[in-house]
Amino acid sequence: MNLVILRLFHRHMRDKRMTTHIALTARAFGAEELFYTGNHDSSIEESIERITKEWGGNFQINYIENELAFIKKWKKEDGIIVHLTMFGIELEDKLDDLRLKSNNKCLVIVGGTKVPGAIYQLADYNIAIGHQPHSEVAALAVFLDRITKGEARRKKHSDASIEIIPMEIGKNTKQT
Amino acid sequence: MNLVILRLFHRHMRDKRMTTHIALTARAFGAEELFYTGNHDSSIEESIERITKEWGGNFQINYIENELAFIKKWKKEDGIIVHLTMFGIELEDKLDDLRLKSNNKCLVIVGGTKVPGAIYQLADYNIAIGHQPHSEVAALAVFLDRITKGEARRKKHSDASIEIIPMEIGKNTKQT
Repeated sequence: MNLVILRLFHRHMRDKRMTTHIALTARAFGAEELFYTGNHDSSIEESIERITKEWGGNFQINYIENELAFIKKWKKEDGIIVHLTMFGIELEDKLDDLRLKSNNKCLVIVGGTKVPGAIYQLADYNIAIGHQPHSEVAALAVFLDRITKGEARRKKHSDASIEIIPMEIGKNTKQT
Repeated sequence: MNLVILRLFHRHMRDKRMTTHIALTARAFGAEELFYTGNHDSSIEESIERITKEWGGNFQINYIENELAFIKKWKKEDGIIVHLTMFGIELEDKLDDLRLKSNNKCLVIVGGTKVPGAIYQLADYNIAIGHQPHSEVAALAVFLDRITKGEARRKKHSDASIEIIPMEIGKNTKQT
């Protein structure tokens, strides 16, 4: 499944680390690209691009101004839209259904504060990772991990310049 | 499995939201308690306690000063210790092994910056959720989700004063 993330309503300073963690999680768990709306922050883009350059792959991060236009265009192009929200239907109840659509490209919307009702309407699936308050980073990680059956995060990037050598105890990396 | 989280080296201001998200993720994914070290921040404790009061359950958050003493005590009391680190062994390769120990209590250590070598040594398992840089929130969420097979996050709390009614579209809650 081609996975693209849309992170809504980024706020300068306050959300800097959260948005960075969302982008890193998207990349590490197999998404191809992240778009974000709200305040434009080129320092986040630079930090993600630096990591992608070092650790490999083709992950992209891009700012857009108008989330509704973007989502509507996606809908027209036959991609499916998943909106992660604690108010939605639990992932376990939709996982088989979602996996059947693995030939489609999938836009995963990660809300910030106060997601407008229009986005609930436009989404094909409003999906909850449990119904307790937690974290958009946690929700995205579990969603992508489950959808990709934990495989995407194990993928190696042939163009990486640094790679971890897994160890029972301690740290080891290889420059390639 | 009784799951307790140890979040290392919390820093005032800079880590406020990350530590809050770690605690909320711990609670939502079935951990019983979170301890943290570094800077003491009672505002985080208050916000987690407020959420637990409203959403139910017995989740506890507590500050400790000395992580090594705490970990050594845990080890003496026959709990197992998992340290989440991108340098460790991939979760998939240890999951069966960990599930065999589900009668033990398990301390899950979530690092901040620069985890000392002693913690890698004290851990029974240094576990990676993939070997790419991402997020301690993502790592904790996926670890707990996999260990509990997604069940813990679906548990209802009988003492909650607010509960979500899952919806295909829109938001609905019930005051209980």
